[in-house]
Amino acid sequence: MKKELAGNDHDSPLKKKLREVIFGTETPAGRWFDLALIVCIVLSVALVYIDTVASIHHQYGELIYLFEWLFTVIFTVEYGLRLYCSTNPLRYCFSFYGIVDLLSILPSYLALFFPGANMTLVIRVLRLFRIFRVLKLLRYLSEGNMLLRAMMQSSRKVFIFFFSVSLIIMVLSAVMYVIEGPENGFTSIPKSVYWTIVTITTVGYGDITPQTSLGQAIAAFTMLLGYSIIAIPTGILTAEIGQEIGRNRDLRRCANCLKKGHELNANYCDNCGSELEAPLSESTSK
Amino acid sequence: MKKELAGNDHDSPLKKKLREVIFGTETPAGRWFDLALIVCIVLSVALVYIDTVASIHHQYGELIYLFEWLFTVIFTVEYGLRLYCSTNPLRYCFSFYGIVDLLSILPSYLALFFPGANMTLVIRVLRLFRIFRVLKLLRYLSEGNMLLRAMMQSSRKVFIFFFSVSLIIMVLSAVMYVIEGPENGFTSIPKSVYWTIVTITTVGYGDITPQTSLGQAIAAFTMLLGYSIIAIPTGILTAEIGQEIGRNRDLRRCANCLKKGHELNANYCDNCGSELEAPLSESTSK
Amino acid sequence: MKKELAGNDHDSPLKKKLREVIFGTETPAGRWFDLALIVCIVLSVALVYIDTVASIHHQYGELIYLFEWLFTVIFTVEYGLRLYCSTNPLRYCFSFYGIVDLLSILPSYLALFFPGANMTLVIRVLRLFRIFRVLKLLRYLSEGNMLLRAMMQSSRKVFIFFFSVSLIIMVLSAVMYVIEGPENGFTSIPKSVYWTIVTITTVGYGDITPQTSLGQAIAAFTMLLGYSIIAIPTGILTAEIGQEIGRNRDLRRCANCLKKGHELNANYCDNCGSELEAPLSESTSK
Amino acid sequence: MKKELAGNDHDSPLKKKLREVIFGTETPAGRWFDLALIVCIVLSVALVYIDTVASIHHQYGELIYLFEWLFTVIFTVEYGLRLYCSTNPLRYCFSFYGIVDLLSILPSYLALFFPGANMTLVIRVLRLFRIFRVLKLLRYLSEGNMLLRAMMQSSRKVFIFFFSVSLIIMVLSAVMYVIEGPENGFTSIPKSVYWTIVTITTVGYGDITPQTSLGQAIAAFTMLLGYSIIAIPTGILTAEIGQEIGRNRDLRRCANCLKKGHELNANYCDNCGSELEAPLSESTSK
Repeated sequence: MKKELAGNDHDSPLKKKLREVIFGTETPAGRWFDLALIVCIVLSVALVYIDTVASIHHQYGELIYLFEWLFTVIFTVEYGLRLYCSTNPLRYCFSFYGIVDLLSILPSYLALFFPGANMTLVIRVLRLFRIFRVLKLLRYLSEGNMLLRAMMQSSRKVFIFFFSVSLIIMVLSAVMYVIEGPENGFTSIPKSVYWTIVTITTVGYGDITPQTSLGQAIAAFTMLLGYSIIAIPTGILTAEIGQEIGRNRDLRRCANCLKKGHELNANYCDNCGSELEAPLSESTSK
Repeated sequence: MKKELAGNDHDSPLKKKLREVIFGTETPAGRWFDLALIVCIVLSVALVYIDTVASIHHQYGELIYLFEWLFTVIFTVEYGLRLYCSTNPLRYCFSFYGIVDLLSILPSYLALFFPGANMTLVIRVLRLFRIFRVLKLLRYLSEGNMLLRAMMQSSRKVFIFFFSVSLIIMVLSAVMYVIEGPENGFTSIPKSVYWTIVTITTVGYGDITPQTSLGQAIAAFTMLLGYSIIAIPTGILTAEIGQEIGRNRDLRRCANCLKKGHELNANYCDNCGSELEAPLSESTSK
Repeated sequence: MKKELAGNDHDSPLKKKLREVIFGTETPAGRWFDLALIVCIVLSVALVYIDTVASIHHQYGELIYLFEWLFTVIFTVEYGLRLYCSTNPLRYCFSFYGIVDLLSILPSYLALFFPGANMTLVIRVLRLFRIFRVLKLLRYLSEGNMLLRAMMQSSRKVFIFFFSVSLIIMVLSAVMYVIEGPENGFTSIPKSVYWTIVTITTVGYGDITPQTSLGQAIAAFTMLLGYSIIAIPTGILTAEIGQEIGRNRDLRRCANCLKKGHELNANYCDNCGSELEAPLSESTSK
Repeated sequence: MKKELAGNDHDSPLKKKLREVIFGTETPAGRWFDLALIVCIVLSVALVYIDTVASIHHQYGELIYLFEWLFTVIFTVEYGLRLYCSTNPLRYCFSFYGIVDLLSILPSYLALFFPGANMTLVIRVLRLFRIFRVLKLLRYLSEGNMLLRAMMQSSRKVFIFFFSVSLIIMVLSAVMYVIEGPENGFTSIPKSVYWTIVTITTVGYGDITPQTSLGQAIAAFTMLLGYSIIAIPTGILTAEIGQEIGRNRDLRRCANCLKKGHELNANYCDNCGSELEAPLSESTSK
């Protein structure tokens, strides 16, 4: 990362400086730039959101439109600068964040070049794109965090869980469709699948409810099932997170082979068999 | 399994080859066969599902009917081949998967031999049988996996939990029936049981809701109860899964100092520094 | 228990035998008696339940009434026998199960002695009492089980949790009552408390829903809160159950001071300091 | 704390005595004072709550008004005494509990000085303030308890979780707004955010439900997502609580062989058999 920020030696000092501010987070200027950007993103997305409230749109529509363009200009400048001072503009352009950056400014220009009073739907979809700006905030989540690692490690087990749940949902949907039928709101199996998911996840809208006694009995079974099996992903993830926290043992490292992760009461390295130093202090167990 | 696939010595080479492809998963051909079968199952079930949507049925009914028969033929051929090349056809026939295989092709033939415009309900039920095809996918879940083992080991505790919850549900249902009565939707105790399950599992359809103050108080108590006791199966299962993960390590014991619980990738005992044997087989950690 | 079953020396042999069958569970006869009783309880409660379904009552009312009396007679005989052969009839009479036994037969006799076509409500309440029979099944749950112990040990923490949740519910209820007011269904604070509980436990009937923007914002906050804090009792209980399972160490007992519960890799008793025997076998860790 | 209760040497004995009773909890008088206060708080808040029920207000309004003033006088006297005998009245005045104490008596006086038949809303809000009395109960929760510590330590992870969930909610809301649109109840994105939260937390009021097939599919996805990710905060918190429980044992270390983790009621080291020091203070285990 350091190296990437340094770039080629023949880059102009301005380009180097800009790169430090825009891509880096280690200098005060870089941190201020990031903070300002987060504020802009949050405000611009908030604008798109409240603009959809009819009463606000009628009263403040003009003002919101103005601010929309202000943010579009800011993000355009940011996009341009990133392109300019990146050590590898093409790679940035087609990276996930490069595409998000582009998608977050494109709609305003598209709306400008293709106006039209009667293309409401298109404009609605264009506005949706602007909300991708919020995904830029993902950049500020430390990616290598423990949670993600725990989720990755339990992904195979979670997949098996969801596969089994899918089979259960499919069978229950078909059964309910046959029992309740179109006259009670179960107009088709896909609709019945929707009802089963609403029930098994304990959401329970109540827009479709079983009317027959047998249907209610199966619904009750579905609820109890959903209520119980929620324990499974929780159990998996909890066990994994517990393991991850245990990896604070990572701090004990063998001086010979450099392997980390020895338990606190171990005397010898379990990799090369050489003796370990005593644990440094109580604080390592925190 | 291996032995079973080998079968008798006097089987024809074709039969042996077929057996390897259809029942085995170790040869490339066997894996391709399985993959093709999964695709067929998913597509055939999807067809049955979307065919129940009225608008799709009217427009593409003919096409779907055609594909239905295509899949029926494919599954019939598969069933025949399995019968032919199984080392013990009778045992296959009455095994769980044998019955599922039969149930998944039977309805199409039944619908053919017993047509009739006015037997809507029967046809609806027949269609349900076709969905058993989805259960064939169960075959591809590794049965000996950790999740199942953890669930088995906690099954007694979970049974006690569900038994206690059932007692609570029965008492609360009767109480609510007396308090609210038929005029507020609690027309009978079985219906009241349905309401109690809807409430205690936090599904909350809202098709039956308490109207009296006392009823609402008891409903609030029921909700808080359901909200809390969900912790119990989760706790049980989490503890079991944690044990299962820990157990995989316990199998490795140092031959010198007898200390157990070495990690699966350790080479030396972390207590006395002597060399460890290699783990017996990787598959134990799966 | 053993001693209690034995009773006084001058009891008649019949009384002793009866006591073994009725109170004991160690002889085959005792187990058959228990099983028969469970079947009777389940059937009698099921009768009361389905009798409340109007259509069934009209068709099979007479038959159900007959069976009601059959079970009442059976339970009366059981109650009499228990009184007769108990070593301490008075203590049995006022014990929890003694009262449940009485409550489960009393209503039938009360309904007999105080008939009256116009006392529907009283009869409804009397019927409720009959359902207490189901509580007799509690007797068959091993009382000293692990789940209960884990719940007892976490009860103080769970109480603090519910106390905090109650404070949150009370404040949120008052806030919602002020914001939404009677015109949107929040007719009083107690009703608002009901709504808050419906929301925070994620039940969500939808019989009362916020209509104002501010109310919906606070409702959303309430939901997210309820969604998160459910993690707390789960976490407490899981940790306690994990500890309880760890108490399988209970099997290691000091030969000197008889203290149980030494860890599997301990060498000395942590109570009296004398040396411990080696753990018997791997199977103790299961 | 002890020192604070002692105060300056030149305080009058009465002041010292009062301070012990009002702020302290170690003397019997102090405990009785606390208990009486808790009863008063619960009763006074209960009064405000049931007074909002129209039928009760009409019948017992006068009586409730009387009691309201009784409690106001009691809390005023308490506030005065706390101010008088505090070692630092100003600090108390602006402390959290000082403000809560003031807020809980102020509304009654405000309602007295600013009467008016037509200021219903203001009176309603004033009544809300009275409910702050309930927050005084917070004082009786031991602040240094384990639960809070576990929550603090997992707060960073929980924050990352909620940040991620917020991003998901924002994107899903915008998508649903575009798909369903105002004609199906999704009148604006803020309303769509409300729906998404109702769905992802599995509350499911059913006041707004998707009507289009695509909307129902995304709703089903949202439910399954909410159903699964609830496992994450549970996993985090469970692991932390498990650590907290384990940590209470880690504080006890054998002076001879340095082995840590002895149980709090152990007398001898379970590794080398030498005597352990007594635990520093019981309070660490609370």
